[in-house]
Amino acid sequence: MKEHMIKALSAVKEQKPLVHCITNYVTVNDVANALLAIGGSPIMADDPKEVEEMTSIASALVINIGTLNQRTVASMILAGKQANQQGIPVVFDPVGAGASSLRKETTFRLLEEVQFSVIRGNLSEMTVVAGQQAASKGVDVSEQLQGKDGTAIAKQVATQYRCVAAITGAVDVISDGDRVVKISNGHPHLSGITGTGCTTTGMIGGFLAVTDPMTAATAAIMTMGIAGEIAEERCGILGNGSYRVAIMDAISLMDDCTLENWGEIQCE
Amino acid sequence: MKEHMIKALSAVKEQKPLVHCITNYVTVNDVANALLAIGGSPIMADDPKEVEEMTSIASALVINIGTLNQRTVASMILAGKQANQQGIPVVFDPVGAGASSLRKETTFRLLEEVQFSVIRGNLSEMTVVAGQQAASKGVDVSEQLQGKDGTAIAKQVATQYRCVAAITGAVDVISDGDRVVKISNGHPHLSGITGTGCTTTGMIGGFLAVTDPMTAATAAIMTMGIAGEIAEERCGILGNGSYRVAIMDAISLMDDCTLENWGEIQCE
Amino acid sequence: MKEHMIKALSAVKEQKPLVHCITNYVTVNDVANALLAIGGSPIMADDPKEVEEMTSIASALVINIGTLNQRTVASMILAGKQANQQGIPVVFDPVGAGASSLRKETTFRLLEEVQFSVIRGNLSEMTVVAGQQAASKGVDVSEQLQGKDGTAIAKQVATQYRCVAAITGAVDVISDGDRVVKISNGHPHLSGITGTGCTTTGMIGGFLAVTDPMTAATAAIMTMGIAGEIAEERCGILGNGSYRVAIMDAISLMDDCTLENWGEIQCE
Repeated sequence: MKEHMIKALSAVKEQKPLVHCITNYVTVNDVANALLAIGGSPIMADDPKEVEEMTSIASALVINIGTLNQRTVASMILAGKQANQQGIPVVFDPVGAGASSLRKETTFRLLEEVQFSVIRGNLSEMTVVAGQQAASKGVDVSEQLQGKDGTAIAKQVATQYRCVAAITGAVDVISDGDRVVKISNGHPHLSGITGTGCTTTGMIGGFLAVTDPMTAATAAIMTMGIAGEIAEERCGILGNGSYRVAIMDAISLMDDCTLENWGEIQCE
Repeated sequence: MKEHMIKALSAVKEQKPLVHCITNYVTVNDVANALLAIGGSPIMADDPKEVEEMTSIASALVINIGTLNQRTVASMILAGKQANQQGIPVVFDPVGAGASSLRKETTFRLLEEVQFSVIRGNLSEMTVVAGQQAASKGVDVSEQLQGKDGTAIAKQVATQYRCVAAITGAVDVISDGDRVVKISNGHPHLSGITGTGCTTTGMIGGFLAVTDPMTAATAAIMTMGIAGEIAEERCGILGNGSYRVAIMDAISLMDDCTLENWGEIQCE
Repeated sequence: MKEHMIKALSAVKEQKPLVHCITNYVTVNDVANALLAIGGSPIMADDPKEVEEMTSIASALVINIGTLNQRTVASMILAGKQANQQGIPVVFDPVGAGASSLRKETTFRLLEEVQFSVIRGNLSEMTVVAGQQAASKGVDVSEQLQGKDGTAIAKQVATQYRCVAAITGAVDVISDGDRVVKISNGHPHLSGITGTGCTTTGMIGGFLAVTDPMTAATAAIMTMGIAGEIAEERCGILGNGSYRVAIMDAISLMDDCTLENWGEIQCE
């Protein structure tokens, strides 16, 4: 698996794929900088009048409902359909899917109208995507679900929506419905920084432009996990501001050796 | 007073309250990261179709008009009313209240339709809230008002709107109409970084979820003030980028001892 | 030329001009912080109901179409016209002008309805502004155009729209149609950070409030270029997160000596 990720990272750096992101305004700057840091070329555009055209020139599309509104939901549908028509891969981040009816409805509408290559969320969000009742705490995993294994949900989402499902948490679970891959990189400190999930999804978009969905999801998730560990070693003790800067540093310096030596992956 | 703040900080870290923020897109990332840094759980949502639901699951609501538009103003009203109905505390940041008619009208409409627990602004903004003519310079205090004592205005706003009024500046003044508390922490360098005001308001939201309005306002304002001092000592000389990072570091490391030893508070 | 820039920087620090920005939500925080870092006072406002009023109290207006939507395009037109009526200088950043019809149409509509003092973009964007077919890669320069000299395009845009045209790249070209100034400061690492272009445009707005368009454009572009070099020396090796922080540090510490000693400018 690791050699595929290493190849994918090289391919992003070489091809510098254009990635169209319709994402939230809370973490958009980190998403853009992380995409640049792995070698991609992000473009953000969210008006219904331009999203189809923007998607059509991109190599991947990222849809994130973190601060959705009625205008941008329309854009997500339009862009997603355009991507499907042209065979451009799409990754979906159902931020806070269970936190409001608007988010739940939008999630199911997107799942119905757009074929995704990858869906990434935390266990609460992915449980909602799987069509089950799930408590959440805003955009965070509910206490009942914390530490629970996501394998069954990941498999179900992957099968149900013919995609790769990625559930990030203490241990990340990625499945295409058949294979299951687990990544145990990362650090608890990551959850103290806003947008590490959104940023991971953004990077999945970057990798999707150059490789298969399973490799794309694992490469992005492992990149964030390792970055979280390296950043912690380097300056976790300094506080959240320095830690956030060090995460971006580590993402931008990620290379073959780091993935090879730090990556903790298990294929089931 | 300090022991209340110390208790409040522990309570935020323990309860991790969900705080719904309708805030501006300039400083939203800092607001989210600061809320996480003190132990809270921020969620940003601003569409009229979901704000009431989002507020209803939150423990506090933050309303900030920094980049208001007609859609988000409607959301602020809806969310504020919902919060009032459920007894969820609301903090209001009237960013640039005097800078345009839209901001002034929105401010007064919010003040009429929503009962706030805390209102925080600079002296220009709070003078407008008090219903007086006030010059401002965009979102900054006008030159005429710089260095003026805000006690009278704070008391008036607090009495008029039955809330805690907090005027931040070189010396911060917080009043519930009766008591007056002054905090002299902080550093002039803070005004060189965008969003330290918005971030303080965000943290007030976090503290409001676990304590009374007076303690919440003083705890958040003192946290930002002390963070500004610590950051200045650690790396003010390096420039504004490093200073901003160090502020977030200091917020995330804030603890009992730091509040106890650095806090400069005076009760009148 | 350098003495004009040095004077301009002092004037911004002294006058702290209010700069109204209608800009994109990806890089808006950096734009605000950079304006503060050079001594200006940024205010962001983008609703049609307040932009004219906001512009009328500002000393310069920044228009950036990076995440335009139909509401904000209306605001850009209104604010631009208001600025023109009052003789307030306006700088335009046609982000991704060639990437979609909406961006191209908006660009030409703005060029028709608003008189700009400065237009700043990369070579792809400025080629579109010049009315020529230009390939672009999202918001980046197309591969065909990379490394090409922009003198002819800069002169044409400047003449056509009676303004100063600034094309930023490996070598920056600034022209008023007659004079041509080239700046060779900067570092390739800058293109790995989102928003260095937007931030430069924001700073042009700050300088425009106190000096002529030619000086404003060169001062802002040189400030960013030198900051990119200093940041690279100080911590480019640490990665993109640290590099971004160091850029803001260097902008905030920019002074006479630094401009004098580091500035690489050539007048043709």
